[in-house]
Amino acid sequence: MPQRLVIVGGDAGGMTAATNARRARTAEELEIVAFERSEWPSFSACSEPYFVSGEIEEFDALLVRTPEEFARQGIEVRVQHEVTAIDTAARVVTVRDLPGAREFTVGYDFLVYATGAEARRVAIEGRDLQGVHEMHVLRDALAVRAILDASPAPRRGVVVGGGYVGLEMAEALHTRGLHTTIVSSGGGLLGGALDPEMSTHLADLVRALGIDVRVGQRVECIDGREGHVTSVGCGEHTIPADLVILATGTTPRVELARATGLRIGASGGVWVDDHLRTSVPGVYAAGDCAEVIDRITGAAANIHLATIATKQGRIAGINIGGGDEAFPGALGTAITKVHDLEISRTGVTEAAAIAAGIDVAVTTFDATTTAGNWPAATSMRVRALADRATRRMIGAQIIGGPTAGKRIDALAMAMWNEMTVDAMVNVDLSYAPPFSGTWDPVLVAARKLQAVLGGSG
Amino acid sequence: MPQRLVIVGGDAGGMTAATNARRARTAEELEIVAFERSEWPSFSACSEPYFVSGEIEEFDALLVRTPEEFARQGIEVRVQHEVTAIDTAARVVTVRDLPGAREFTVGYDFLVYATGAEARRVAIEGRDLQGVHEMHVLRDALAVRAILDASPAPRRGVVVGGGYVGLEMAEALHTRGLHTTIVSSGGGLLGGALDPEMSTHLADLVRALGIDVRVGQRVECIDGREGHVTSVGCGEHTIPADLVILATGTTPRVELARATGLRIGASGGVWVDDHLRTSVPGVYAAGDCAEVIDRITGAAANIHLATIATKQGRIAGINIGGGDEAFPGALGTAITKVHDLEISRTGVTEAAAIAAGIDVAVTTFDATTTAGNWPAATSMRVRALADRATRRMIGAQIIGGPTAGKRIDALAMAMWNEMTVDAMVNVDLSYAPPFSGTWDPVLVAARKLQAVLGGSG
Repeated sequence: MPQRLVIVGGDAGGMTAATNARRARTAEELEIVAFERSEWPSFSACSEPYFVSGEIEEFDALLVRTPEEFARQGIEVRVQHEVTAIDTAARVVTVRDLPGAREFTVGYDFLVYATGAEARRVAIEGRDLQGVHEMHVLRDALAVRAILDASPAPRRGVVVGGGYVGLEMAEALHTRGLHTTIVSSGGGLLGGALDPEMSTHLADLVRALGIDVRVGQRVECIDGREGHVTSVGCGEHTIPADLVILATGTTPRVELARATGLRIGASGGVWVDDHLRTSVPGVYAAGDCAEVIDRITGAAANIHLATIATKQGRIAGINIGGGDEAFPGALGTAITKVHDLEISRTGVTEAAAIAAGIDVAVTTFDATTTAGNWPAATSMRVRALADRATRRMIGAQIIGGPTAGKRIDALAMAMWNEMTVDAMVNVDLSYAPPFSGTWDPVLVAARKLQAVLGGSG
Repeated sequence: MPQRLVIVGGDAGGMTAATNARRARTAEELEIVAFERSEWPSFSACSEPYFVSGEIEEFDALLVRTPEEFARQGIEVRVQHEVTAIDTAARVVTVRDLPGAREFTVGYDFLVYATGAEARRVAIEGRDLQGVHEMHVLRDALAVRAILDASPAPRRGVVVGGGYVGLEMAEALHTRGLHTTIVSSGGGLLGGALDPEMSTHLADLVRALGIDVRVGQRVECIDGREGHVTSVGCGEHTIPADLVILATGTTPRVELARATGLRIGASGGVWVDDHLRTSVPGVYAAGDCAEVIDRITGAAANIHLATIATKQGRIAGINIGGGDEAFPGALGTAITKVHDLEISRTGVTEAAAIAAGIDVAVTTFDATTTAGNWPAATSMRVRALADRATRRMIGAQIIGGPTAGKRIDALAMAMWNEMTVDAMVNVDLSYAPPFSGTWDPVLVAARKLQAVLGGSG
């Protein structure tokens, strides 16, 4: 009789675990069944803003893999099924068939807890008015796209929250022709990901693109008439709005984990060891609901990125399949864009470094995306951080024109290998005038930090 | 009395040595004088094709730094001055003032031999006809640009040689509206830099851009009438031409080094140790004339790239200035483009790996430059190589649409750190749909090699 793997939550973390376990074990050895609350497993949440903007035209393009495709791999996916309880002693889950409104139980040998993250429910009066939307599940993207496609289309959009989703949704509404305002409680945009001076610089550049950016403002109420939103904010800072997007961050979805008795880490996510095992035998966790070790500080963190969810899922699946692979932690490398402006980051911010007790050296400089003499050169600003004690690069942030952003990968690769800035200076990177200066900005970052640190290592 | 540093050849290697020595030593401590045969020191040879194409409009944009700018740093640059002899016993160089047609001698304490590379003089009948040009010094770029700007402009251009310069010059002529043919003696294009199947693929893609590509043809003669070129090739493969560019490769310029008694390495370049010291005390070498250690094979090689020349020059200058820095070798990371098609490479080719006795594993796959669901996705082909014994990635080649090429830097950074493909798989690189799939092609390359190697490390 085969063993059974139950996946709780059928998105990036869970389904990647499923496919990797399947690669290692036949259907005769291991039955795999995934329960997903929504209508769709394995969807690209990161693509939602681009579906709203219309740049990704078809809804199907958001679906990474269908239940039928998983079935052909010998993975059973039950959508609109929610796991409501996990009995870790008996190794049995209780599942609710949402449309059928009935419950049943399923035994498991292995379980992957992969419930993802949920929108942070910031207390905002009027958040349930018509025309006010969160952006989290595919249904949200469908709803907002339908509003934008309807006639009359909304003319004024307000996005509450200056994080990745907020920024991407502001771009989407602006692309759709709405007068768009983004309201950030921080001093700039992407304040969690960038140091203050980069965050402020980004706000200035986004403003220059024609998007209204309000910083340092916390939205506490949304006004409406006849049940439909009319404006955001109360008192003096009121902004008229026909459509409001709430993008005030995400938090690990751990309610069931808590009820089940899985250990919750200090970060608020499900605690896992480097093999993605939770505190309970047979139960693994992967994705946004699980903690991840920050490679720079060594501390557990919540980093909600599809890249990390997928990598964790892969390793959980390999280990469930009988393998022995450790997840080496993350840097929080991320990239996004607003029209032609690219933003990327990796490693720790200055504030995070200081909080971790690191004596940090910092440089900020302007470079060009190509050689300076190339006509299409656009400017890019780079901020890079090093640990004075080890002379290692520990963080980097980039804001610039086309091709600026993906340079973060070379920096992340260097940081992953714990390179000193002195060693980085000599790395043989590519150059031709349409692509960079002789010293790519990646190397310039190392040289500038060398100058700040003094000496040559 | 100050010591004196004499720079023989005032381009990337030499002038970078000069500025780095100057940073470490005041003018009171060290006099620096550079002798440059041509009219311009420190020019961007890599930009020449783009000046010819007109994309870089102004000639001044090719000049990195003028003699006046160097003078302000306390570095004397004497252009149109050629060092004709080096007496290493007396530490005296003989210099010829080319316009003045007189010779004089200058003593030195340190010398940097940085004469660069020269065009390989392939035996081709008719190579001195009017309308036949090499592309090496700035004067060549000026001459070809003048021909293209003149009326009537040439209509048919033929480029002999399928290397970087050949490819870039073919693009330039094509951009200027010429019916352009590129003739390569190899089976494809960039045959020295790419494995045969990538080289052939590139030839196909360049053809699809409207450039006539002839492979496997060696040009032995060029025909002309009234002293001006009329066609390339003799016998059956004749190609009509109004303008011919010879780009048949470069070779280290070592004649003076040989006469001086500097040891010449097996690669044909000036032998240097890891501090860029030649075999003769007080004499350093940097740039295209000097050997460089290939980090993958450990063998000395000729790699003629501005990036390497600059890095070698920097280290020679630091060491002359009293520092102690070693040059860690190179990977031969390079990038170029033909219109929207980007080509990049790093590390060893399969042939080079085999020649070095490496048991090599190879993968070639097609990916997209963005997420697959992104409308602007263009295809990119990646080829990656690993050492079966160590499971390390040792080479990579990329051909694809916009943004494909610079990914080579992340691969080079991984190879620089001698990462196994197993370790690479988990590296935290950036992702968003406009930039890549959840697994960037860099990581996919590692995963594909893992599959070829078997096991998980």
